Amino acid sequence: MRPTLASVVLVADLTGTVVFAAEGAMVASARHLDLFGIMVLACVVALGGGMIRDVLIGAVPPSAIRDWRYPALAFLTGLVVFVLPPALRLAPGGSVLAGLDAAGLSLFAVAGAEKALSRGVGPLGAALMGMVTGVGGGVMRDLLLARVPLILVSDIYATAALAGAAVVVACRRLAVPVAWGAVAGGLVCFGLRLAALRYGWNLPGAAR
Amino acid sequence: MRPTLASVVLVADLTGTVVFAAEGAMVASARHLDLFGIMVLACVVALGGGMIRDVLIGAVPPSAIRDWRYPALAFLTGLVVFVLPPALRLAPGGSVLAGLDAAGLSLFAVAGAEKALSRGVGPLGAALMGMVTGVGGGVMRDLLLARVPLILVSDIYATAALAGAAVVVACRRLAVPVAWGAVAGGLVCFGLRLAALRYGWNLPGAAR
Amino acid sequence: MRPTLASVVLVADLTGTVVFAAEGAMVASARHLDLFGIMVLACVVALGGGMIRDVLIGAVPPSAIRDWRYPALAFLTGLVVFVLPPALRLAPGGSVLAGLDAAGLSLFAVAGAEKALSRGVGPLGAALMGMVTGVGGGVMRDLLLARVPLILVSDIYATAALAGAAVVVACRRLAVPVAWGAVAGGLVCFGLRLAALRYGWNLPGAAR
Repeated sequence: MRPTLASVVLVADLTGTVVFAAEGAMVASARHLDLFGIMVLACVVALGGGMIRDVLIGAVPPSAIRDWRYPALAFLTGLVVFVLPPALRLAPGGSVLAGLDAAGLSLFAVAGAEKALSRGVGPLGAALMGMVTGVGGGVMRDLLLARVPLILVSDIYATAALAGAAVVVACRRLAVPVAWGAVAGGLVCFGLRLAALRYGWNLPGAAR
Repeated sequence: MRPTLASVVLVADLTGTVVFAAEGAMVASARHLDLFGIMVLACVVALGGGMIRDVLIGAVPPSAIRDWRYPALAFLTGLVVFVLPPALRLAPGGSVLAGLDAAGLSLFAVAGAEKALSRGVGPLGAALMGMVTGVGGGVMRDLLLARVPLILVSDIYATAALAGAAVVVACRRLAVPVAWGAVAGGLVCFGLRLAALRYGWNLPGAAR
Repeated sequence: MRPTLASVVLVADLTGTVVFAAEGAMVASARHLDLFGIMVLACVVALGGGMIRDVLIGAVPPSAIRDWRYPALAFLTGLVVFVLPPALRLAPGGSVLAGLDAAGLSLFAVAGAEKALSRGVGPLGAALMGMVTGVGGGVMRDLLLARVPLILVSDIYATAALAGAAVVVACRRLAVPVAWGAVAGGLVCFGLRLAALRYGWNLPGAAR
């Protein structure tokens, strides 16, 4: 059986939720927040981007509220990180955490673009929604921690999400099967992000 | 006549609006913001949580915009605080202000959970909506003041709101009359919050 | 042919988008953000206020997502600022930039109030929606830059937007033609803002 659009969105969304919840919980525990702070950051990073997307495309209540699996997965993941011995937690800035983050970004960029397309949003809007889904949770995390969002100051991050989402939109236009478009978009985002990290790629700044 | 769900939500919402508007205005005046800043913080703290809730459950335009009594009450309360002589304003960190804040938190947690249930949101989602309604205004206040939201760094605050909202949801499941469930949920939230303040309860941090 | 409500909103919204995108891009380039950061700030300042308005009045997906002209204009404007030689960029705090900003504020306050009225929002709510449309993008910019929003700490800014929006609402009540009401509201906002800048007007602070 060929995977349907809804199932591609669901799998990408739920996997991204676990990945981003783990990342949020690790950032919170590195900051010595209490159990609730860890849970909040896990939920915000994991559910924030999808909630912004759903509110913007009019899919309310957002999946993260309507479907108990989203908050339950985020909570559970936060709890697992909480009880992990410190030695097993990933170092902030380490390459495993960066890989996890790139995976979550790619999954959400794909899920966001597919879901926006499925609600009749146009191509440019859908690509932007993919980007917002990917970076929204991280931006909310940085706002809560009162720091300038990382995406504003460094690296190819949101650009990778936008590129991946654009590939998804283009594949749909070319009538490529949904699952193939999702894999292609995800790989473009993931590859771009990892390459940017590996080789220190940055976008140019304005002339000074 | 038995109080209806709509009237319970309305009374809790409007009372919470006054309480939180007063708190926001006092925080703003302690920071020496001008009249507009005081009005903005009064409105943000009083209306922010409910607006986030209404947007998330698809009840748009939110009550705070559709129903003139919400912004009018917040404005009026801000104005009253503005003209108060300094001696009558509550000290930030003082126990009267903390009591007011706990009351607003409880009222909004109850109203948020009831309203979400009434729109068909499931039990876990409704409890989360109660928490968001209670803490949303305070988080927006802290974001505007460019500081890490208090709920992330200390005390049992959002946890109390979540517990109160969960009691409301559980009472509904057990077919307890609406008003009783609201009172029970409110008391649980209020009691937990005050006890946490009184005895310095905190959630555990992650192992270091 | 008499201009219709929809065309007044569209013209004010699109012009405001260009003006605010230019302002956001200039602020970002003054902070030495990279190309993506410049694009993000251009989009956030230009589209943020309208998106908040559209979400709150239930006009989802917001125009900024449904109508490709909005993000395209914001991108294009950001790109133009990016390739400008530094000598041609406007100095932050300079009077040309302040004039542009006042123009964007007035255009958005008018568009926001008109659109809210057209969706059946009441008078007080519509005036508040005009203010939110005008100041929303700037507040999101300041949140992303992790600083206290300028509107909270100084000057008559949001007050000017609220006054302009209130004029639009009052004109509608008095059955003044839409275009005239829009011009009157815009001039009130623009004049108030420039006068406040020129003469250093501020709202009173609370008694100390």
